Amino acid sequence: MRATMHRLVTALLVCGVPSLVLAQAPSTERWVVTTDLWGNALYQGLTWERTGKRLGGELDGDALEGERTGNDVRFVVTDAQHARATYTGKVSGDTLRGTADLPDSNHPNVRVKHAFSARRVPERPAGPPRTHDFKPTTYSNEFSASREPVLTLWAGDTLHTTTLDSGGVDEHGVTQALFGNPQTGPFFIGDARPGDTLVIHLKRLKLNRRFADSLDTVVGRALTPALAAKAADLGKPVRWKLDLERGVASPETPTERLKAFTVPLRPMLGGLAVAPGFGLPAFSTGDTSRFGGNMDFNEVVEGNTVYLPVFQPGALLYLGDGHAAQGDGETSQYALETSMEVELTVDVVHGKAASMPRVESPTHLMVLGQAGSLDDALRAATSGLTQWLEQDYGLTLSESAQVLGSSAQYVVANLAGRSVGVVAKLDKARLATLKPVAK
Amino acid sequence: MRATMHRLVTALLVCGVPSLVLAQAPSTERWVVTTDLWGNALYQGLTWERTGKRLGGELDGDALEGERTGNDVRFVVTDAQHARATYTGKVSGDTLRGTADLPDSNHPNVRVKHAFSARRVPERPAGPPRTHDFKPTTYSNEFSASREPVLTLWAGDTLHTTTLDSGGVDEHGVTQALFGNPQTGPFFIGDARPGDTLVIHLKRLKLNRRFADSLDTVVGRALTPALAAKAADLGKPVRWKLDLERGVASPETPTERLKAFTVPLRPMLGGLAVAPGFGLPAFSTGDTSRFGGNMDFNEVVEGNTVYLPVFQPGALLYLGDGHAAQGDGETSQYALETSMEVELTVDVVHGKAASMPRVESPTHLMVLGQAGSLDDALRAATSGLTQWLEQDYGLTLSESAQVLGSSAQYVVANLAGRSVGVVAKLDKARLATLKPVAK
Amino acid sequence: MRATMHRLVTALLVCGVPSLVLAQAPSTERWVVTTDLWGNALYQGLTWERTGKRLGGELDGDALEGERTGNDVRFVVTDAQHARATYTGKVSGDTLRGTADLPDSNHPNVRVKHAFSARRVPERPAGPPRTHDFKPTTYSNEFSASREPVLTLWAGDTLHTTTLDSGGVDEHGVTQALFGNPQTGPFFIGDARPGDTLVIHLKRLKLNRRFADSLDTVVGRALTPALAAKAADLGKPVRWKLDLERGVASPETPTERLKAFTVPLRPMLGGLAVAPGFGLPAFSTGDTSRFGGNMDFNEVVEGNTVYLPVFQPGALLYLGDGHAAQGDGETSQYALETSMEVELTVDVVHGKAASMPRVESPTHLMVLGQAGSLDDALRAATSGLTQWLEQDYGLTLSESAQVLGSSAQYVVANLAGRSVGVVAKLDKARLATLKPVAK
Amino acid sequence: MRATMHRLVTALLVCGVPSLVLAQAPSTERWVVTTDLWGNALYQGLTWERTGKRLGGELDGDALEGERTGNDVRFVVTDAQHARATYTGKVSGDTLRGTADLPDSNHPNVRVKHAFSARRVPERPAGPPRTHDFKPTTYSNEFSASREPVLTLWAGDTLHTTTLDSGGVDEHGVTQALFGNPQTGPFFIGDARPGDTLVIHLKRLKLNRRFADSLDTVVGRALTPALAAKAADLGKPVRWKLDLERGVASPETPTERLKAFTVPLRPMLGGLAVAPGFGLPAFSTGDTSRFGGNMDFNEVVEGNTVYLPVFQPGALLYLGDGHAAQGDGETSQYALETSMEVELTVDVVHGKAASMPRVESPTHLMVLGQAGSLDDALRAATSGLTQWLEQDYGLTLSESAQVLGSSAQYVVANLAGRSVGVVAKLDKARLATLKPVAK
Repeated sequence: MRATMHRLVTALLVCGVPSLVLAQAPSTERWVVTTDLWGNALYQGLTWERTGKRLGGELDGDALEGERTGNDVRFVVTDAQHARATYTGKVSGDTLRGTADLPDSNHPNVRVKHAFSARRVPERPAGPPRTHDFKPTTYSNEFSASREPVLTLWAGDTLHTTTLDSGGVDEHGVTQALFGNPQTGPFFIGDARPGDTLVIHLKRLKLNRRFADSLDTVVGRALTPALAAKAADLGKPVRWKLDLERGVASPETPTERLKAFTVPLRPMLGGLAVAPGFGLPAFSTGDTSRFGGNMDFNEVVEGNTVYLPVFQPGALLYLGDGHAAQGDGETSQYALETSMEVELTVDVVHGKAASMPRVESPTHLMVLGQAGSLDDALRAATSGLTQWLEQDYGLTLSESAQVLGSSAQYVVANLAGRSVGVVAKLDKARLATLKPVAK
Repeated sequence: MRATMHRLVTALLVCGVPSLVLAQAPSTERWVVTTDLWGNALYQGLTWERTGKRLGGELDGDALEGERTGNDVRFVVTDAQHARATYTGKVSGDTLRGTADLPDSNHPNVRVKHAFSARRVPERPAGPPRTHDFKPTTYSNEFSASREPVLTLWAGDTLHTTTLDSGGVDEHGVTQALFGNPQTGPFFIGDARPGDTLVIHLKRLKLNRRFADSLDTVVGRALTPALAAKAADLGKPVRWKLDLERGVASPETPTERLKAFTVPLRPMLGGLAVAPGFGLPAFSTGDTSRFGGNMDFNEVVEGNTVYLPVFQPGALLYLGDGHAAQGDGETSQYALETSMEVELTVDVVHGKAASMPRVESPTHLMVLGQAGSLDDALRAATSGLTQWLEQDYGLTLSESAQVLGSSAQYVVANLAGRSVGVVAKLDKARLATLKPVAK
Repeated sequence: MRATMHRLVTALLVCGVPSLVLAQAPSTERWVVTTDLWGNALYQGLTWERTGKRLGGELDGDALEGERTGNDVRFVVTDAQHARATYTGKVSGDTLRGTADLPDSNHPNVRVKHAFSARRVPERPAGPPRTHDFKPTTYSNEFSASREPVLTLWAGDTLHTTTLDSGGVDEHGVTQALFGNPQTGPFFIGDARPGDTLVIHLKRLKLNRRFADSLDTVVGRALTPALAAKAADLGKPVRWKLDLERGVASPETPTERLKAFTVPLRPMLGGLAVAPGFGLPAFSTGDTSRFGGNMDFNEVVEGNTVYLPVFQPGALLYLGDGHAAQGDGETSQYALETSMEVELTVDVVHGKAASMPRVESPTHLMVLGQAGSLDDALRAATSGLTQWLEQDYGLTLSESAQVLGSSAQYVVANLAGRSVGVVAKLDKARLATLKPVAK
Repeated sequence: MRATMHRLVTALLVCGVPSLVLAQAPSTERWVVTTDLWGNALYQGLTWERTGKRLGGELDGDALEGERTGNDVRFVVTDAQHARATYTGKVSGDTLRGTADLPDSNHPNVRVKHAFSARRVPERPAGPPRTHDFKPTTYSNEFSASREPVLTLWAGDTLHTTTLDSGGVDEHGVTQALFGNPQTGPFFIGDARPGDTLVIHLKRLKLNRRFADSLDTVVGRALTPALAAKAADLGKPVRWKLDLERGVASPETPTERLKAFTVPLRPMLGGLAVAPGFGLPAFSTGDTSRFGGNMDFNEVVEGNTVYLPVFQPGALLYLGDGHAAQGDGETSQYALETSMEVELTVDVVHGKAASMPRVESPTHLMVLGQAGSLDDALRAATSGLTQWLEQDYGLTLSESAQVLGSSAQYVVANLAGRSVGVVAKLDKARLATLKPVAK
């Protein structure tokens, strides 16, 4: 069987607690709570407003009531199914530690105690959104919910940073991390919580060196048996020269027939992800899922916006694996792998999560379905596009069917990973006559 | 097991025959030979040059030698494996009938007699290519090698004709044929023989009525289980108004949300095919294969050129199932189905058959892989594109791999049939620096 | 778009007709009606009871009323949607010819005249079921609804006949038909009409020669890219010796390592089919569908029963492509291909059509899903098995889900054709406690 | 792009080192070395023989030479491509810490220093293999290479332990771990190193409680769109009674139609795994790969033997997710989930790794291919079976093709996870005449 989060969620059930209300100006604090469930960390976002001793607020969207006396805290969280959890702990500076009394995931009437801790999220700085120049010194080879954030951003903030190439090499040609798409990050997005959508506006993707590395291969997923027999001796490294002035790439030591072959530079991020949700371990930076990941989609370019569903408090944004150019599907297993300067602005849409990654260009809506076969990936992408049309334009499935039948576009995003990606697209001009749902 | 043509081909083996050579101006005749193999018709293209009594020439590309005395004809055909077949018959006007003495398909040393007949192909008219105005009176619901041609065209000729909509309805709204994509044709292309490529330049696709019929459905191949549950009550007819002046289509009785929704008209042929090869029965006009068929690919539009591999003498071109507009994949099962005026010019490339349908636009090369899953269709399309690059640009697979990895595009052509279609594309600008192979 | 039968069926709509009733002993006649729909043959089963002039009865299950005066016949057929069709014709011996006045398939209020003819089905012989010894002289390379039946059988009758091997070779090693799975038949089953299930009890499959032909290959669908590269030079013929006394087969000229290798003989029919339904052309004898076909399933053996849904009047049973033994999937493209003696008994279940082929052994229920990918074939097989459990045991989907989750078996039937086959199985012992639905 | 291990392996390149040889009885020590590669742990098995100061031996199969002076150690490892790595460190008890000087993974001539540590593996106890009674107190929700082993076993040792059900519930009905297939282990197998095959003889799988939990659902992968619409309201819990005396299970509160329905108990382990290799993060205990995992294959039963390829020093064996019974594919998402007593004996085959999991029963060889689609899983399984025939019987692919075509069996193992499983099987009776390769 497979793990599901449902068991736990449906099992939260606690007895009542008195709530105190005092006449005082409330102060708001945000915390990330980590509950140790038999060795597994459950991360949750906690916000409380304190009015005198009294605490009100929410934990991952569920209502919270409690009190704080000195450093002693006690609060009860009630979910939509009226299940309750009691937390008792002690504050020490920016840390809170204690015990959570939760319903047993298998027996709603049995209660189990689990240790929890929490770290306070620094307050959002006053003033307008800020721009952060971040020079990474460590890189992650996992999309992990447990990795320490390298920086906190808030909605509207702009991040300016750099990424290594997939082999861990920087703009000076120096290896700085382990191969396998090492990522810059994670960045903690102060306003993001599970169920939200993280919005990433890619302001600038700038190449910062003059070469990229690739292969002369064709991935197995693109090979017929006959072609596979011919492809058996492929797989040699191909270095590409990046001519930043002319905006083209070309093989550094081409064969006679390819000696004038060039491709336009179109820098993209192969990897862009938030942390996977509870119940899933860290993912390889070569893998993908609903949280994004190594999507290798060649529309993740400057000027476009990526939407990712948030599964963890703070989202935990990772980025890396820049490509100077890439055909659909990354059929050569490595695209034109290179390092990059990245500038992006983050935003958060609350309570309206996309079920899978979306990309918006000036001209198109695009939804990326990812699965173990193209057939299943296309199903997912279609489902995601109908969700978008329903969320943003209020279309019924019958209406969406008419729009899709006359206007849908499907392209293949990637073929080189464990999952493949198919993109369902719509030209925004087709939607110009539709009335967006009031947000 | 499955039938293969190999058994027969490798089994043709006949004893020798004397050849006569007389000093005389040769006259050339073309025939289509039909050999009855236990009730199955094998069609072959026969060309002979007659010099006095002596006959020289070829049968589907294999060398022929023989003689004609009065109306009595006898010739021997030798294939590349030195297998020989002897044909003895009598000419009567434009018909030839007799007996073919062929090697047994299972025992090369055993010989079997089969009846054959042949009809003479009218000579190519002198002068420049011609334009034919053809008004169809019958329509075919099969892509069949056995159907009588409605007209003979020659390379360079232009055909101007009409097609019905998929329901068999003409430009006046009158049912003229059985539903299920009835086709105009077949047209016999005088110069086309098996192994050639038929080239179809789509000069004009002109809408000739003001409505199209569609559905509000989503095909099963695009549905996740959750979406399938929501789609259970879809499938209602949707009539579209075609505004030929403004160049847009819109639902005739739209819902409130779609009341201003329009899509640009982009007329295309859903069906374009040659006859399937020996050993395959007629195909449904709802089906596809290497010979084309109900491809439902929305780049089969005016201004583009389609290349189909030829499997039968005369190719036998069929066309139909016009769509006023269609999204990728024809996800609504019916696109905007309508009747059409078609103008096309045919050409033939000898001896360089594409392994599957190709479409060329002013800007792109496109190869259509078709199979039972998107995964297999993409494999086929990739294989077809590498074949194109090898045939036209002499690229090795290593070189193609570099071109594809940096430049390939993949789109989904159709999802509504027994097979699905995936298209591998290349921007022709990427190939501008490559040197074409001398043809 | 694809053809559907719905349009026609829902379009049959005719005006009323008076019905005459006379006091007389009715006589029953059965006919097969062929209506020419713009060059396409629609076959329907007609049964009428004549009481004086008055005719009552049904056409493919729809009620019929009319009268016969001398040789002049006129009747009206009304379908479940109250659509009516009027037939007017003249009887001459066992033939009836005339005109059918049908609703237009696209405009229910417009009526169109189509020529029709009918041939009388000989009456079922009195007495108990009979055994027919049938020696074929022709073979079919298509599963076709248009092919003349070679013999009429009735429910309960037993057929004893022979089949050629897939290459068209008989028990004496003589080629009798074109390679590609030539079939014995078709047999017209007097009681079978569309919507019924044809039941084929395989009484005996007896090998009648001492060799079988195969290949040393692995089909593309079973090859990883790496294995494909190694398999490039496979494909050589392998002749197998059939030791009928010991009941084993072995390669005739084995390699050293295989010199003692034997496999048990387990004769099976690779091909077993009824004719495809209206709107579909003939299928290749290498292809499959809901009507059966080249299923290549190694449980189509002596002692088992095959159920096929009937799509045409008389079902039109075809059989051929015997295998002396076959692994799952026929991974060598050719199994141990051989000729065979076949004895089978036919039966008909009225009005309870299986949606796809079923096989029942003494121990198992098996449903064969066939599609363009294993993933889709498995979906189909599961659906077919839940249908069986619902039809025969009245199980809801929730109940079936419990049975399947604890007891389902899935095997791969075939990998060598255009479609692949997956079988969903249940041990009949698991169903012993369930109460069958009263039939 | 995706991570590969090749870059590192081909990059190990170090300068030479003198080797000292003294006349002394050598002592052998085994260590597990952990090298910190930019925050990623590379685990390797180290064995050295010490003769005086001189050290000889191997690191993951590569030759090692060096010396130990007091607690100071220095050694050089040379791989098959002549790449060398230098390790310098200090021993303190059972720990060794120091610095590894390795070639840069991207620039073979550049060298990079990484910290490493090692822990000494306790010596194999003298005497015959032992039986360990292990009562777990912690459980793992990941298949991880980083988790501390709970016990060390040696080839031939027998382990007697218990597993929780997939919900984390023990034999007393008490929740002991987080839901999602919590596993017992990992067990460190003293003799196992990367490239070996771990052999697990399942001596006993004994049910230790009287209920199991399941659902009444059908997994999405088994649903056609039509069935999906009907299945929308399934998914309810179904508790099964386990009648250990009669050896059957039955729904605790069955519907009327299922009130006598029972299935034979056939306890199996859904989860059985070794740790994934370097470059892969921990896997979910709901996921699978070449290392095994949540295979949910109903032939992982008492009396059968499982072979898993080893990717990490000590293999790190995990087990859990017992099922009292399961149909093929685990179509109800949860099988009959229950706790279990397990007794198994481990063995190690050196240097002959299977490329994927194998299961051997008294009668069959079985190879489990796992991939994102059944089509790809079947390809993998076929490839794995030909590998087995080549490794154990020396068969060429042509010979294997003959064996498979006549004798292969394919069953579906699981449908409920991210990857699906297809099993290629051979009856061992078919192989009885073949001569095994000398091992």
